[in-house]
Amino acid sequence: MYLLSLLIVVLVSPLLSAATFTHGVKNDLFPEILREEAVARLYELGKVSDADGYLERTFLSPASIRAGNLIRIWMEDAGLTTWVDGLGNVHGRIQPPNASNTALLIGSHLDTVVDAGMFDGALGIVSAISALKVLNVTGKSKQLKHPVEVIAFSDEEGVRFQSTFLGSAAIAGVLPVSSLQIPDKSGLTVQNVLKDNLIHTTGETLSQLKYEPESVLGYVEVHIEQGPVLESVGLPLAVVKGIAGQSRLKVVVKGSQGHAGTVPMSMRQDPMVAAAELIVSLESLCKRPQDFISSDDPDGHCNAFSITSLAGSLVCTVGEISTWPSASNVIPGQVTFTVDIRTTDDVGREAIIYELSKQMYAICDRRSVSCLMERKHDANAVECDAGLNSQLKSAAYAALRRMTGENIGEVPVLMSGAGHDAMAMSHLTKVGMLFVRCRGGISHSPEEHVLEDDIWAAGLAMHTFIETNL
Amino acid sequence: MYLLSLLIVVLVSPLLSAATFTHGVKNDLFPEILREEAVARLYELGKVSDADGYLERTFLSPASIRAGNLIRIWMEDAGLTTWVDGLGNVHGRIQPPNASNTALLIGSHLDTVVDAGMFDGALGIVSAISALKVLNVTGKSKQLKHPVEVIAFSDEEGVRFQSTFLGSAAIAGVLPVSSLQIPDKSGLTVQNVLKDNLIHTTGETLSQLKYEPESVLGYVEVHIEQGPVLESVGLPLAVVKGIAGQSRLKVVVKGSQGHAGTVPMSMRQDPMVAAAELIVSLESLCKRPQDFISSDDPDGHCNAFSITSLAGSLVCTVGEISTWPSASNVIPGQVTFTVDIRTTDDVGREAIIYELSKQMYAICDRRSVSCLMERKHDANAVECDAGLNSQLKSAAYAALRRMTGENIGEVPVLMSGAGHDAMAMSHLTKVGMLFVRCRGGISHSPEEHVLEDDIWAAGLAMHTFIETNL
Repeated sequence: MYLLSLLIVVLVSPLLSAATFTHGVKNDLFPEILREEAVARLYELGKVSDADGYLERTFLSPASIRAGNLIRIWMEDAGLTTWVDGLGNVHGRIQPPNASNTALLIGSHLDTVVDAGMFDGALGIVSAISALKVLNVTGKSKQLKHPVEVIAFSDEEGVRFQSTFLGSAAIAGVLPVSSLQIPDKSGLTVQNVLKDNLIHTTGETLSQLKYEPESVLGYVEVHIEQGPVLESVGLPLAVVKGIAGQSRLKVVVKGSQGHAGTVPMSMRQDPMVAAAELIVSLESLCKRPQDFISSDDPDGHCNAFSITSLAGSLVCTVGEISTWPSASNVIPGQVTFTVDIRTTDDVGREAIIYELSKQMYAICDRRSVSCLMERKHDANAVECDAGLNSQLKSAAYAALRRMTGENIGEVPVLMSGAGHDAMAMSHLTKVGMLFVRCRGGISHSPEEHVLEDDIWAAGLAMHTFIETNL
Repeated sequence: MYLLSLLIVVLVSPLLSAATFTHGVKNDLFPEILREEAVARLYELGKVSDADGYLERTFLSPASIRAGNLIRIWMEDAGLTTWVDGLGNVHGRIQPPNASNTALLIGSHLDTVVDAGMFDGALGIVSAISALKVLNVTGKSKQLKHPVEVIAFSDEEGVRFQSTFLGSAAIAGVLPVSSLQIPDKSGLTVQNVLKDNLIHTTGETLSQLKYEPESVLGYVEVHIEQGPVLESVGLPLAVVKGIAGQSRLKVVVKGSQGHAGTVPMSMRQDPMVAAAELIVSLESLCKRPQDFISSDDPDGHCNAFSITSLAGSLVCTVGEISTWPSASNVIPGQVTFTVDIRTTDDVGREAIIYELSKQMYAICDRRSVSCLMERKHDANAVECDAGLNSQLKSAAYAALRRMTGENIGEVPVLMSGAGHDAMAMSHLTKVGMLFVRCRGGISHSPEEHVLEDDIWAAGLAMHTFIETNL
């Protein structure tokens, strides 16, 4: 069925026109573009990888460049004018003849984590292009009162340079010039990597990537939920109320390197065991913050936080760890690991980091090892715009109603535990987000999956949102 | 002073002859060969590395091949006939005209750990070659009653293939044929790597590398102590009573991979935190085994062990750890780490592994992750031969007495916590070992250091041992 649909799309697509979609009940839901073609594109993009056997596309890697070229072709197919900017973001824009100067930006990221799923980031790009393609083939895009620009951001996951939002932060004007000098594991800097791809960006030209706030109407992003709520309520779409704030830390523990057979247990200064104890403590702290810190505010200042809200949203993760020199018969001299901390409560997040560093120094002092905690990335929690949310909610409701023919009830409103480019874009303009159901809430994994009908619903909601509000 | 000595050696070495060493009190201690040249060779070998800025030579790596070639040149300079065998071991042999068929083997390893010191392994090879060079230039080697063979083993540390003693186990006839198929991290097997170096070894030819026990007199190895005892008693040399047994384990913890921002703490099956808890438990178990296991033997069997002797010699190390997919914003799906366990008590070691695996399954069950423990390598404790030890003790005493002109008292007798090629060679023949003092007991580290006079003492003791007993 799937292969057959795909074949039909390929055969009929040169003939597609507004007329094709005006007959019948279901045809005005544009399944060929919003479902079959979008699904095929997501699967095609999911194969564009730097690794054999799993999906990996990091900032400006060879596969990222190939993915960007593919996206650009799809943008042009949708009638968009395209270009690549000084940070490798791929842009596609409709400039309707009688439109104002303020553009709606729609985006998501084209990079992935290592061993990724194929929907994280890609769904937001593909569904936006599909929605604009429908507007193009139906001739509606010329009637829009605002330009619409789709942006496929070059870096959101931050895998290569351990620093997220390189692409969207540059456009929002909040990327520090120093970011160009961040090195990857092989010692290449962001600037080197851009240059290797014939993009010559300097501190000066970086600032020119920033969009002027008065040229932008708002920013909208479609993204998979990456959590289990939509699946549990049995609905494909939700509106996002806000995004949790996050900090990424790097912890370096240094001890006394030595031979695994000759240093008695009592004489060791072993950074591996110290790191293990720190990781176990971090878990206890983040599972039950109320056992370690209180939200009392004896000075009566305004930076108090609710321990209940903190405990409800706090998650902490150690995703990377390495030892030096990394041999089974050597007590390591050094252990390095990452800590990812997220909560909707920014003040609470600072309290957790403070408590963690207190525990770290106590453990490291007791074990006579030296510990250093470095803050690699901080992003405050973001509130989505009430007006955009209301429009997205109506559009999602209308799309689901048209697809099912039923009253599906209220579209849910969720908090996002994951960070998104919308966080960086909130520094430039008001933001709104639509979440799409994913199987088992699983993401950052090859098990990540979105139903084909839910991909269709996402595209239709975006199409409805643009057609209704612009 | 050091540079000057080196220069003199270079200038006079073509003129060296037996006569040079027969005049004066100190000249019969052969400082040009046993001290200056040996020191220069150790520093030269210490620079032969696959890495920039630190020492790394793994099994048949390009630097290992270069090191082997250098050692072969030095062996030929000492009058030895040389060859490389089917596992990359470098041999050099003196076959005196009227000698019996039973040869004394002397060896140590030419491979290193990552970020290694320059004396571990190398000192045993260089001091043996130096001792035989003195016998050659003094004309004494022709009068020996037994052949003497120096072997520079290709693999003792096991860094590349996670399996120690590839070289010495082949000669001792205890290397399983399956070892040829062990892959390194890049997927190359031992057999591939040999073939790439034009060594075509098959399961059949492997068995031909085994020496016949009746062709061997014994095996002797000089090695740095890698522990702090000799420094604390203020002596350069000790005799080794025996070597601790060891097990190397690989633990794989599998959990549920997911997005660091969206899976609540209470719903995680995080293999990283499980691994951290396992590592902390392992440390407690190995620091205080008496709190976890008893040496009671209710069945009256003979496999009881002394908890006191176990607690006194037990050391456990986690030297390597990795996560998959290894990104700071992904809850890992899998964590793998190594465990190195050593003690002089073989039964006690089994009891520790049994207790560790009990604790592991309890922790993993509680955390709903799956755990697997694989035994990568096991070696029982080895007793050194009393006769060889007595001869080595006399030789060490005589050498130190001649160097200092004083009665230095009893030569210490130590246990070895580190494994050595002598462990593998004990399957073939009786073994004896001499330990050399190293600064601070530090090894497997660039901080590893041996005094120049202690290098001299080691060479002189070996020279005395061969001259007196063969």
